[in-house]
Amino acid sequence: MEQEKKTNTYIIAPNLVRSDLTRSINGTDQFGNIIELPVIEERPLTIFLNEQEIVTAMTIGDYPEYLALGFLKNQRMLLSDDKVKGIDFDLELNTIVVRTENKTNFEDKLKKKTQTSGCAVGTVFGDMMEGMEDLILDPLVIKTSYLYSLSKKINQTPSLYLNAGAIHGTILCYRDNPLVYMEDVGRHNAVDKIAGWIFETGTNSNDKILYTTGRLTSEMVIKTALMGIPVLVSRSGFTAWGVEIAKQVGMTLIGRLRGKRFICLSGEDRLEWDASLTENEKFL
Amino acid sequence: MEQEKKTNTYIIAPNLVRSDLTRSINGTDQFGNIIELPVIEERPLTIFLNEQEIVTAMTIGDYPEYLALGFLKNQRMLLSDDKVKGIDFDLELNTIVVRTENKTNFEDKLKKKTQTSGCAVGTVFGDMMEGMEDLILDPLVIKTSYLYSLSKKINQTPSLYLNAGAIHGTILCYRDNPLVYMEDVGRHNAVDKIAGWIFETGTNSNDKILYTTGRLTSEMVIKTALMGIPVLVSRSGFTAWGVEIAKQVGMTLIGRLRGKRFICLSGEDRLEWDASLTENEKFL
Repeated sequence: MEQEKKTNTYIIAPNLVRSDLTRSINGTDQFGNIIELPVIEERPLTIFLNEQEIVTAMTIGDYPEYLALGFLKNQRMLLSDDKVKGIDFDLELNTIVVRTENKTNFEDKLKKKTQTSGCAVGTVFGDMMEGMEDLILDPLVIKTSYLYSLSKKINQTPSLYLNAGAIHGTILCYRDNPLVYMEDVGRHNAVDKIAGWIFETGTNSNDKILYTTGRLTSEMVIKTALMGIPVLVSRSGFTAWGVEIAKQVGMTLIGRLRGKRFICLSGEDRLEWDASLTENEKFL
Repeated sequence: MEQEKKTNTYIIAPNLVRSDLTRSINGTDQFGNIIELPVIEERPLTIFLNEQEIVTAMTIGDYPEYLALGFLKNQRMLLSDDKVKGIDFDLELNTIVVRTENKTNFEDKLKKKTQTSGCAVGTVFGDMMEGMEDLILDPLVIKTSYLYSLSKKINQTPSLYLNAGAIHGTILCYRDNPLVYMEDVGRHNAVDKIAGWIFETGTNSNDKILYTTGRLTSEMVIKTALMGIPVLVSRSGFTAWGVEIAKQVGMTLIGRLRGKRFICLSGEDRLEWDASLTENEKFL
């Protein structure tokens, strides 16, 4: 196991081959010089569930299938007993339609709500705590050395972020191995693409770690919890409600992981403190 | 004018007096020590337009009226001929209702859409380019010295960000004076609160500069354009579509403003290059 550490463990690495995810743009720098720089593309993608228009997401445009599936799963519009029979992506119309064998519960609920109280534009977001009431995640124990190792590997991975900036990354990890690295304009899209990949590949989530470059807000914690992932790690900060929800569902939540520093906000008893810090590192 | 430079120009400065915008939380640091730290609060706020539920936003909870008004304005659900007769905020229910004298066009459109095609959940976001077709912003000329001055003043302003992190700031500025400093969990909320303030106070927007800590995505550029603000500045990066829209509406767009560096992505001919950089600063 230890010997494998140097190996590239990515199943999906950042999308550096496709040339349509960035565009070369001219800007003017502080000296008045014209400079050419790579800039992230951003496209609308309107997601449909069968006949129902759901939302327009702004995305870089890779993996629209994973994004649509993951979004619908994370919003609990697609439940585990819904059978997806097809996904139609239309590049020109910027639409993607996820088709299920039978009409989903969500469509029925939405129709009822529409008939009784007018249209329910915001409800999909308003019901976000649904499915969280009795959720308790598996109590996965992880080593603090994994955190440092993951952070280093992820920071050194060539990415759209390193090329062009203005983008968030979310990485699905097993032990100290990054497996699936998704990037997108919004940090939520990157998480949804991971959710779509997990759903499509039938991958176990209860032994995984999710690393994100974005902040640990309530929505990020809820999405991660609904995906069944027991550990969420970020180089950025966190909100009070994010921390509260993590505690409620038994999620290990780590924020501000930079260099040798981190803050564990929830689940510190599920950390195995195997990384010994040197005297010098105490001041990093 | 020059003598006023040292004066505090804020009409609204960051909200450091209210104790309910942050919460003290215990975390465990990398040495296993328990530390206490201030963390940003995050609360749901469900916005209604008359009887119509619109959206649930996650917000720190200050200025719910400005947030609701600004969101509805920036989504063009409230148009300039709609008269707001009241705003009811319910702290316990986390709801805010904006009431207009007459039913809005938006409600009519939504009802029609609901009747013909089922509920239109995503449409509010899908129609985001509406109102942008013929929009050309006033060609405001600004000095490059304003950029440096604003950046310095804003970075030195005591803020929730400096106290607790995990939050975005958006600041409405006139020349090199920051006027209204809004912070929120999402950068869009901070912009919407500025929009609400402009609407409520009837402030001119065509001579202002908007500074944001967040990235310059299409949504940020669209909101700023719909607010009639001709200059948008950020310390962060930008997306290709954000730049494209800025060019389309004649907005001056400045990204990656840090120290003496910046990149002008649109409107470089409306910059007055009065800030001369020293040889040393050329390498900053």
